Amino acid sequence: MESFTSEADYLKELAGRSVLPEGFRCSTTSLEFYPRERSIEKPLPMSLALILLDQPSPDFAAVFTRNRFPGAPVLIGRKRLARQRIRGILVNNKISNVFAPHGEEDAESLLAALGAGLGSVPAEELFAASTGVIGWSLPRKEMEEALPRLVAGLDGSSLLKVARAIMTTDAFPKVRRAAVGRGSIVATAKGAGMIEPNMATMLCFICTDVAMPREILRKELSWCVERSLNRISVDSDQSTSDTAILLSSGRAPAVPRTEFRAALREVLSGLAFDIMRNAEGVGHVMRVKVTGADVEATAVSVARAIVNSPLVKTAIFGNDPNVGRIVSAIGDYMGNAGRPFDPAGITVRMGGVDIFAGGSFLLDAGKEVKLSAYLKERLLDTRRPPWPQHDRTVDIKVVLGALAAEAEVLGSDLSYDYVRENADYRS
Amino acid sequence: MESFTSEADYLKELAGRSVLPEGFRCSTTSLEFYPRERSIEKPLPMSLALILLDQPSPDFAAVFTRNRFPGAPVLIGRKRLARQRIRGILVNNKISNVFAPHGEEDAESLLAALGAGLGSVPAEELFAASTGVIGWSLPRKEMEEALPRLVAGLDGSSLLKVARAIMTTDAFPKVRRAAVGRGSIVATAKGAGMIEPNMATMLCFICTDVAMPREILRKELSWCVERSLNRISVDSDQSTSDTAILLSSGRAPAVPRTEFRAALREVLSGLAFDIMRNAEGVGHVMRVKVTGADVEATAVSVARAIVNSPLVKTAIFGNDPNVGRIVSAIGDYMGNAGRPFDPAGITVRMGGVDIFAGGSFLLDAGKEVKLSAYLKERLLDTRRPPWPQHDRTVDIKVVLGALAAEAEVLGSDLSYDYVRENADYRS
Repeated sequence: MESFTSEADYLKELAGRSVLPEGFRCSTTSLEFYPRERSIEKPLPMSLALILLDQPSPDFAAVFTRNRFPGAPVLIGRKRLARQRIRGILVNNKISNVFAPHGEEDAESLLAALGAGLGSVPAEELFAASTGVIGWSLPRKEMEEALPRLVAGLDGSSLLKVARAIMTTDAFPKVRRAAVGRGSIVATAKGAGMIEPNMATMLCFICTDVAMPREILRKELSWCVERSLNRISVDSDQSTSDTAILLSSGRAPAVPRTEFRAALREVLSGLAFDIMRNAEGVGHVMRVKVTGADVEATAVSVARAIVNSPLVKTAIFGNDPNVGRIVSAIGDYMGNAGRPFDPAGITVRMGGVDIFAGGSFLLDAGKEVKLSAYLKERLLDTRRPPWPQHDRTVDIKVVLGALAAEAEVLGSDLSYDYVRENADYRS
Repeated sequence: MESFTSEADYLKELAGRSVLPEGFRCSTTSLEFYPRERSIEKPLPMSLALILLDQPSPDFAAVFTRNRFPGAPVLIGRKRLARQRIRGILVNNKISNVFAPHGEEDAESLLAALGAGLGSVPAEELFAASTGVIGWSLPRKEMEEALPRLVAGLDGSSLLKVARAIMTTDAFPKVRRAAVGRGSIVATAKGAGMIEPNMATMLCFICTDVAMPREILRKELSWCVERSLNRISVDSDQSTSDTAILLSSGRAPAVPRTEFRAALREVLSGLAFDIMRNAEGVGHVMRVKVTGADVEATAVSVARAIVNSPLVKTAIFGNDPNVGRIVSAIGDYMGNAGRPFDPAGITVRMGGVDIFAGGSFLLDAGKEVKLSAYLKERLLDTRRPPWPQHDRTVDIKVVLGALAAEAEVLGSDLSYDYVRENADYRS
């Protein structure tokens, strides 16, 4: 059980989690700008963040969105994967720099200016990461003017200020940490909306001092992201900018690969859960576990069909155990996928209560009352106080058959507040 | 342009559209019941409707949902397709009779009782159709007691009472008519939510007196449904009960097949549009046309990706021309489908305004103001007066490339009222 009763309570915990591993420094600053694509009276604020290794490192990894309109930072990041060494990451919020005119040129120019400010660091040793409105251009001039402040503010104490700077509609900053060998893994993510299905977080930055070689970092990052950040869904939209970057300073001794994997998975699963319980307008986090599938991909698809069904999501939001919609969502997926399927072999359970088994629904008034109370007890405060309230989830279990593959996916309900936050996100 | 200024205005139009073709009668009645699956104080109301041919006819067609948990009426209906002759359709709302214990037995028993009441009509000559909560059992006793009233009420004047009886969260009844040769096609549908992607309406009943043979009716119904009711989406859920049934009395002379197809498509496209502009909580109807695709299926998938994106839907609801989300939805689909794709070859337009072309966004403050006004002008009253307000849509055009395939899909925005209607639909 993990819950916090106040922001101060949470920040105390975060202070401990955010201590940077050896060999890292970071910094943040802010600026104001007028977007050329919108007529507005007041300038918009933008935050910049910088994560920097003391020395360039050959040991880094990154995974990106599969969206076919990726942001300029993603296009640049893919090229950086071929570089010998990386030094750091420049992040901005507010504008995601996706297919804006001259977007890639803007980003490269900012990285070059940052590199010069850092003292002859080549732009090619820096990643960029951007989140925000799609299609607008970066305010290059205002950002360049802010870079000296960013460089001047570098220090090696805590990642928390970066966690704050990358927030958009997040209600609280997210940091997770795991000790591993004589070092640690410390990571932050921003999430909120547009979370699914590949690279489920828009931005995630992972710092470690454990000396793991590049090849292992890359394999383990892909494996762990697939089973954590890629197993959550808020609104089934995969963003143009989803990015996770892992940097190692190599200052602490290497550990066995399985040990590193376990620690990385723990950190990323923690962030994935934080993203879900802080999703836009979230009232309930659903935890859907599908077992008995032929292959893992089937289990993932069935679980996603449930958490992405607007009818399931709205019923859960209303604490309404309209469980027929869960079964319908399974049948909808199986039918569209053209999969053969025997309804008699499936079991569906919510909160430990059997709702479908042996080929028919098993519903009565007593279960209705029980499930309604269960949903109410799992509710999060949709006004979203700036700390995680509790870690209770709406647990849905589906047994598809007698085979061995399984998967778990986290999802959110669909509330008035989700609509409100997304109907005019930019203003 | 088609719009109505009051309910009386609309009902006057509907009266003309609803005149039954030769050889049909219909009837409706209502009842009250206590569902055994829910503890409630007041009984729930249910409507029954009956559409009856004066004589059994060999000329009928039906298409059903592909959901793998189909309702008992769908399972029964598929068997009926092999029968020599059909006499009519019994419809109920409130409970969809999906995998309830003994659901198929309940439905067959009701059809047998109805057949007896009609005077020795075999149950096998009757279709059933049910809409409503999934997983609950039909109140068989109360429904049987209501059947004599249903039979006694049969008359041959108007389909309008059936259009009313099958409404669930629909705000107005839907009837469309087309004259064809010396006969007509008259049809009604219920829609509202859970509309996508195959058999986009939950229930649709089509009566004609034109003497077209069974084989042609079946081919033309499938062809026309695919290009009308299957090209709309409210919430991307395909229901367990989606059904369209077409009956011919054969009382008017046959017409050329292309003429019949054109009339049937006109009727079904009209109903599809009525369903969309009366969807749960709808504020805007989106009309997405995708051209220049390799095959029609690609064009349909891209259009669906746009109308089903929660981020696009909420932005449109807020009259917020956050058009980057449209392009992101295209890229998300193309990436997940693993399709090769050249962003430089695509053009995206909203309301006649170019927003993406030549490999980058083309946005400025003037376009923002113009598109914002355009969205406001296309808005429907979300309080949903009981008549169709206007037929203005938010027109989005996507040119994928230089190839010839194209498709059009209708979608709805995502509003507070959608969430409200679905968070406790049953109470």
